[in-house]
Amino acid sequence: MRPTYDLEEGRVKAFLADVRAGRAGIQIPAGLRPLLPEIVKTVEDAGVEPLVLADPCYGACDPADEQARQMGCDALLHYGHSDMGIRTSLPTLYVEARVPVDPSEKVADALEGLELRRVGLISTVQHAWALGGIAELLERTGRTAVISEPGPRVRYPGQVLGCDLFCARSIADRVDGFLYIGTGAFHPLGCSLATGKFTAAVNPLTGALSEFRPDDQGFVRKRIAMISRAALSSNFGVVACTKPGQNR
Amino acid sequence: MRPTYDLEEGRVKAFLADVRAGRAGIQIPAGLRPLLPEIVKTVEDAGVEPLVLADPCYGACDPADEQARQMGCDALLHYGHSDMGIRTSLPTLYVEARVPVDPSEKVADALEGLELRRVGLISTVQHAWALGGIAELLERTGRTAVISEPGPRVRYPGQVLGCDLFCARSIADRVDGFLYIGTGAFHPLGCSLATGKFTAAVNPLTGALSEFRPDDQGFVRKRIAMISRAALSSNFGVVACTKPGQNR
Repeated sequence: MRPTYDLEEGRVKAFLADVRAGRAGIQIPAGLRPLLPEIVKTVEDAGVEPLVLADPCYGACDPADEQARQMGCDALLHYGHSDMGIRTSLPTLYVEARVPVDPSEKVADALEGLELRRVGLISTVQHAWALGGIAELLERTGRTAVISEPGPRVRYPGQVLGCDLFCARSIADRVDGFLYIGTGAFHPLGCSLATGKFTAAVNPLTGALSEFRPDDQGFVRKRIAMISRAALSSNFGVVACTKPGQNR
Repeated sequence: MRPTYDLEEGRVKAFLADVRAGRAGIQIPAGLRPLLPEIVKTVEDAGVEPLVLADPCYGACDPADEQARQMGCDALLHYGHSDMGIRTSLPTLYVEARVPVDPSEKVADALEGLELRRVGLISTVQHAWALGGIAELLERTGRTAVISEPGPRVRYPGQVLGCDLFCARSIADRVDGFLYIGTGAFHPLGCSLATGKFTAAVNPLTGALSEFRPDDQGFVRKRIAMISRAALSSNFGVVACTKPGQNR
């Protein structure tokens, strides 16, 4: 099921007018590229020339402000992530691309067999706005819900990134396990590994439930195998990265 | 057969000392990456810290001086291409990685059946130094050899790039066809398409001969098919590039 995203057309147009943009760079993760025609139209409707920055982008650690400047842009629209506080050389607007669909019903169905009593709630920026409602839902079924204040690189309570699981770690000793609202295995797997706690993941659109157990050692075993193979080598390289938020 | 390359260790060390490098960026096309351990050792032997810039690199149009600066380098070593005259923000040395193997014997064998009388000679920077000897070889067999002065983006007589076929075009009306000394189909195919002339390619290491005829329309037919498919679309994007020598 393809979700609907809030592309905040009004805020985008106000920003472009505010910074008097002539040409705006558009940066968007691969999964959201189908939204580009709609985004390009919004920018054109604002009387601004759109320029899509097509390099891969995995987070707000990677604002393409320098490339946008090089291509003659005077503003940057970064979609799909919340502001991580990286200083940019161009006026930059983060459009979080929230999914404005209440996942409560799907989650309620998925939770029926869930045995956790004290549940930590985590999500990505697309769905974190809904965690309050999910907490109420859990409380109504006699469970305790815990949502952490945001960690250093995120903006919302319960929000996690691949590189910032603060919202899971900080409450791990107060919960029996975690409930992740979102898509993909990346974040809930990280949560279960980082906290050592069972993590259930519910896809807020389909209601599909998947489970991540810290004692399912498949992922860790593969990592150990890679390290063992690498240990046989005699020359090692250290990989660094030019992305502004990763080269610290 | 894996060729030997001249990595000019002496010139590299003199350059690094001359610019008082502390950390040197190393940029190299994918095909030459097996040479990295040797290059890294040369840099380390000079008392300089090596840093390999691992983004793909297809020409001297793409010096990674900005990325190197970002990673704290104070000099750049660019391998496999000749200087194209792009201004860089760091002291930059182009190491052309010539193949110091005389291809005359292999070429002589391959040419036995070749019917061209007036032959234009072209090559890449790795083998262009040998074109003079090949010209003599052709003259000895009663043929006429023509080598053009270098075009705008290259440094040596007869040298071609994927984007600079001046050395073929400029003599096309004076020859029956071309002889390309080098590997790969990219340059001789370009030559035959750009000049409309038969082009023979001889691999200087193996002696393998391949032939490119402008009336072999396979490549052009595929291009026409792509254009026909694109013509059915209603939205078009224009692809631009941030590589310094391509964004002009």
